[in-house]
Amino acid sequence: MKAEILSIGTEILLGEIVDTNAQYIASRLPALGVDLYFKAVVGDNIDRLTETIAKALERSDMVICTGGLGPTEDDLTREAISAVMGEEPHVDPQLEADLRGFFEKRGYSMPERNVKQCWVIPSGRAIPNPRGTAPGWWVERDGKIVIAMPGPPTEMTRMWEKEVAPELLRRNPGSILITRTLKTAGIGEGTVDEMVSPLLKSTNPSIGIYARADGVHVRMAAKAPDEAEAWRLIKPVEEEARNILGPAIWGADDDTFESIVCDMMKQNGVTLATMESCTGGLLASTITDVPGSSGCFKGGLVSYQTELKIEWGVPAEIIEEHGVISQECARAMAAAARAKLQASVGIGITGVAGPDEQEGKPVGTIHIAIDAIWAPPQAMSYTFPQGRGAVKRRAVTTALVLLRQSLLNYSEEPWALV
Amino acid sequence: MKAEILSIGTEILLGEIVDTNAQYIASRLPALGVDLYFKAVVGDNIDRLTETIAKALERSDMVICTGGLGPTEDDLTREAISAVMGEEPHVDPQLEADLRGFFEKRGYSMPERNVKQCWVIPSGRAIPNPRGTAPGWWVERDGKIVIAMPGPPTEMTRMWEKEVAPELLRRNPGSILITRTLKTAGIGEGTVDEMVSPLLKSTNPSIGIYARADGVHVRMAAKAPDEAEAWRLIKPVEEEARNILGPAIWGADDDTFESIVCDMMKQNGVTLATMESCTGGLLASTITDVPGSSGCFKGGLVSYQTELKIEWGVPAEIIEEHGVISQECARAMAAAARAKLQASVGIGITGVAGPDEQEGKPVGTIHIAIDAIWAPPQAMSYTFPQGRGAVKRRAVTTALVLLRQSLLNYSEEPWALV
Repeated sequence: MKAEILSIGTEILLGEIVDTNAQYIASRLPALGVDLYFKAVVGDNIDRLTETIAKALERSDMVICTGGLGPTEDDLTREAISAVMGEEPHVDPQLEADLRGFFEKRGYSMPERNVKQCWVIPSGRAIPNPRGTAPGWWVERDGKIVIAMPGPPTEMTRMWEKEVAPELLRRNPGSILITRTLKTAGIGEGTVDEMVSPLLKSTNPSIGIYARADGVHVRMAAKAPDEAEAWRLIKPVEEEARNILGPAIWGADDDTFESIVCDMMKQNGVTLATMESCTGGLLASTITDVPGSSGCFKGGLVSYQTELKIEWGVPAEIIEEHGVISQECARAMAAAARAKLQASVGIGITGVAGPDEQEGKPVGTIHIAIDAIWAPPQAMSYTFPQGRGAVKRRAVTTALVLLRQSLLNYSEEPWALV
Repeated sequence: MKAEILSIGTEILLGEIVDTNAQYIASRLPALGVDLYFKAVVGDNIDRLTETIAKALERSDMVICTGGLGPTEDDLTREAISAVMGEEPHVDPQLEADLRGFFEKRGYSMPERNVKQCWVIPSGRAIPNPRGTAPGWWVERDGKIVIAMPGPPTEMTRMWEKEVAPELLRRNPGSILITRTLKTAGIGEGTVDEMVSPLLKSTNPSIGIYARADGVHVRMAAKAPDEAEAWRLIKPVEEEARNILGPAIWGADDDTFESIVCDMMKQNGVTLATMESCTGGLLASTITDVPGSSGCFKGGLVSYQTELKIEWGVPAEIIEEHGVISQECARAMAAAARAKLQASVGIGITGVAGPDEQEGKPVGTIHIAIDAIWAPPQAMSYTFPQGRGAVKRRAVTTALVLLRQSLLNYSEEPWALV
């Protein structure tokens, strides 16, 4: 089955909000045996919306829409689908009773403009939405399907998981797509491409190479009637890719630097403590995004002000002599975090996130230190491109890369005694 | 000028990575006087890519592409544009010398497959890209423009800001779009729509109402020959909307809860300290995303393990009696953070981010406490939908909303003495 995804809303078209729905749906179609041919965004304009849905239905079997199901005059998805189908919407009495109940339970009476959320058309049925006021639409005629889901991601994802995906799975025509992604670090896109070029002739699985923030990815995608057969096709190609790329591979599929690092720490019984200045807690938050990170992460200190660094164990002399924005300060922060929180490794990060320079050091200056019981303390310095958010993220990723490198050389012997 | 944005790449189409480029470009077109009619995503498929570019050029004046400029066999943007234009690409000797230099400076010799990054066609010129190996393309013929930029966001954004946007601004046909967004909290989308319905007939500015994670937004968009004229159109409508919505409005445009809260704290000389458990530092990181937050944020503690909570001032008896996942513990964390870090307000967050329940409390249970010198301590409890990332984000947003409410009642008098 050939499908297209259509995101509806002027705010999405103009980039005022990021559309995460299309990405969510797209990532879930392959395992349902649905081929995605196109993704598009249109604004809240009835003519362009109608035209886009009509054109999509000409060339594909299914159009999956999100957005435009609210109660306002801007919300035109129902109107556009009705126009494409040439059918008149009418108010469904049961839907109306349910919606009035939804408002009453919350102590409000329903605004009259919400009535259009109770519309249906002859070729369609409403899809339940217990998380909001807008039911979805499943419209089907002459072998073509239009699905409309609400824009708010919590409503859309529930509707997808509980209602739409199970129905699509029942119609699975017997061909699914399975992917395996190997993630590398330390080599460029062109080099990876040359290394795996013997594999690139493969068409099933097909192979793609992509440069990402966390390194170059090699992605294998196999099509088969079922999962077991797809994995049988991927296995020999994956083995050869692993042989070729060897230690450059640091993870696969959903692995992140933080999940890999947590796994390594837990395997070795290592515990981590952090002291962050310019990253303001983002390192601690990133590590604790990993389920089960409480098994290795003891805690973190966000020493946004200098007096707190000193109170938490950074010697005042170091700050006087080298300043807060220095390798020496990062080193002392890592050591203090490890000592204060009784962990086996500490990370210290200090730098200038911007927008203004600090101690005469330019925006983007970052110092990261690792103080582990199994290795001599190390500190590295970087300059990252401007932009407060970007500096914080790059600093955190780099800290995780450095921690992984240190953990690769983990030893049970304290280094000072070796 | 009518434009379309085309994001190129199978990984984007399949939702394996989120496309931030389209959103970035879309948000910058209105101020350049460019009307955006369509956004689309195609995979790395030469036929569909060629067809999509050709169709876009039929109905619009300009197509802005990102992605597909890498050196691999999957990177087909140059091939597709050449096919649409009916022109043969050739290697530009200067570009080739530059690219070989780029690799040499980094101590590598250039892989031969990178040569195609030095292609140009007769109707096109290369756009410099000092951040990577792929120059962009600016192709122009018969009044139609195709712009191709590399996919990595750091490369794309620099190319946009330094090369593409200035050139488009020079061609500004004299009509720009300016928007003003008012952000409300505490009232639903249908209610806001009814409240501002007297304004909805306005066509310039046009008015849109959108439900967002931080409340319902009212967005006014005015078209005019220049900025001053656009603001003159927006002003009376904005004033009326502000009169109607009154105290429900908490901010405008790029305001976030964290930026508003930092402004309020700095105005009142308030300083903040945090102690976080399940949010793992995300509250501290969110606050420190605000430039200048060092003027109000003293620091934060991430007490991921119980022993640290006690060490940092949470009475052991409270944990014994009520457990870590309790309003009482959140209250003690807020008080301890304020005392330990000598701040005027402390926030404590504890709860179950998941995936497993804890102390018999279900995933999504969250307790948030605020301990301020100007008000009696308060603690609230919530259950947020499952999903570790979502629980953390909702908890942080809610903590900021509570802090804002408390700051609205700020008084210089310590509450105990009133």
